[in-house]
Amino acid sequence: MMDERALVRRIKRLSAGQAPGVVLGIGDDAAVFRPADGEDLVFTTDMLVEGVHFERDSHRPSDVGHKALARGLSDVAAMGAVPRFCLVSLALAPWCGERWVDGFYRGLMGLARSTGTALIGGDLSHSDKVTCDVVACGAVPCGEALRRGGARVGDLIFVSGSLGASALGLKCRKGAAWRRHLRPEPRLALGSFLRETLRATAAMDLSDGVSLDLRRLCEESGVAAELDGSLPIYPGATVAQALHGGEDYELVFTVSRGTVVPAEFGGLALNCIGRMVAGKPGSVSWGGQPLAALGYDHFRK
Amino acid sequence: MMDERALVRRIKRLSAGQAPGVVLGIGDDAAVFRPADGEDLVFTTDMLVEGVHFERDSHRPSDVGHKALARGLSDVAAMGAVPRFCLVSLALAPWCGERWVDGFYRGLMGLARSTGTALIGGDLSHSDKVTCDVVACGAVPCGEALRRGGARVGDLIFVSGSLGASALGLKCRKGAAWRRHLRPEPRLALGSFLRETLRATAAMDLSDGVSLDLRRLCEESGVAAELDGSLPIYPGATVAQALHGGEDYELVFTVSRGTVVPAEFGGLALNCIGRMVAGKPGSVSWGGQPLAALGYDHFRK
Repeated sequence: MMDERALVRRIKRLSAGQAPGVVLGIGDDAAVFRPADGEDLVFTTDMLVEGVHFERDSHRPSDVGHKALARGLSDVAAMGAVPRFCLVSLALAPWCGERWVDGFYRGLMGLARSTGTALIGGDLSHSDKVTCDVVACGAVPCGEALRRGGARVGDLIFVSGSLGASALGLKCRKGAAWRRHLRPEPRLALGSFLRETLRATAAMDLSDGVSLDLRRLCEESGVAAELDGSLPIYPGATVAQALHGGEDYELVFTVSRGTVVPAEFGGLALNCIGRMVAGKPGSVSWGGQPLAALGYDHFRK
Repeated sequence: MMDERALVRRIKRLSAGQAPGVVLGIGDDAAVFRPADGEDLVFTTDMLVEGVHFERDSHRPSDVGHKALARGLSDVAAMGAVPRFCLVSLALAPWCGERWVDGFYRGLMGLARSTGTALIGGDLSHSDKVTCDVVACGAVPCGEALRRGGARVGDLIFVSGSLGASALGLKCRKGAAWRRHLRPEPRLALGSFLRETLRATAAMDLSDGVSLDLRRLCEESGVAAELDGSLPIYPGATVAQALHGGEDYELVFTVSRGTVVPAEFGGLALNCIGRMVAGKPGSVSWGGQPLAALGYDHFRK
């Protein structure tokens, strides 16, 4: 078993590098970050639990590290923000050796580097099951963060990419769909485009399935959604996987009527799937019928 | 079992209230915080695991919630910072009912309110063992955060309060020492006093025992410590508990020779226990003998 000092040294080495705003990184009681003038900071935190979010046998440690950060960066993207830093808390299980720990941080740092996210701190502990919690912070010009609550009656609803890949991958465990499940790509460039150029009225990332996530967006906005029955479905996925499957990490967003939305952005399709209407806040219809919110809920049996 | 929406609503209600800088709290993809001009932000994160940091039978849920936040705020204090906000990730075990969850958040929010810390977000999950991870953020005037690495040869070393209470409490499980173990009080006012008034050269909180924590401070500062053998020991605790026991959450700090340090601050004793000397960085002596760093290490057998 490793000792804690050696482990911290190893993580420090893997995370080395400068990042704007980072005054003090790993190694003190706390990290120090200097915000830029005129920016709001957005904060999100996501847990990843062995046996719940990943399996020891089927998920490589680098995949676990990648996903642990990708989930937070997907939220950062949904706010229209640019990543700044993250903190990583990790409880190791008895079966974790140095190779697993190295792989985990390599996967995490790979995504951190490619997105400009500095690893500035965290905590180490142990438990029966590997448990990690990642805090991600992003920056956005003051007052410009994209929220869930800004959609208005008449707004058009769009989704990026295609849906159901992650649920399909989890079922078949092979090919491109499985890789999509293991290595989701946070839609950071799209998030900034939605904020700066399209002036989206609301945005949210799809982590628990569009049926559940869109209900949440509608509740916050106080509107109802009418989906026309069209949906960009990932090749091979079922309609149910596309509607209710979690972990696609695409963005759902709304724009004012009349906004010109390109058919794609950076190779990612942008499809209109319906519009916001007056009605019971949070109710979603699909091809004229009420759509049940069957997405993932941790506490539902 | 609760559903996730009901749980989030409950937490939102418990955490209600305004706090400076908080633009958007619980309920969106991410929380939004607006930093004040001229301030650095400090960030720390701490995990609390059932069976490692607390026991279901002996720790009330409100004690667990209090301690989950207290550990982070103790780091904030050690940086000389003022608390701003926290995010709380919580994985619930199958045995957790609504009463436990309510108690946990009540304990946490009690400390949050009394210290001006806003709860702005988090994550909910489930696991075999209750696991929580709290991120705490504090603010400090630009460039003024107290670090571990600032101690110089000749500086005097002080500790606040008395040591060994938590280790004693953990052993005897009753009385004032046990309450100190269950409900540590972050030394926030002292941290600000060290930064503003005493201009401490280095500071750190005592979470793993002074023998281990002081070694870490010395390593970062590139100095050795000579302890004179005096130590403010909690009544009833042994010297070993005071030297190596963890979780006292007092502050150890250094000041330049000639600094006038009061005998107490706000009812908390401030005792000089030694001085920094030239020598192997990180080595600590105690009454003329080398002091082994026997404090708590998660990964040592």
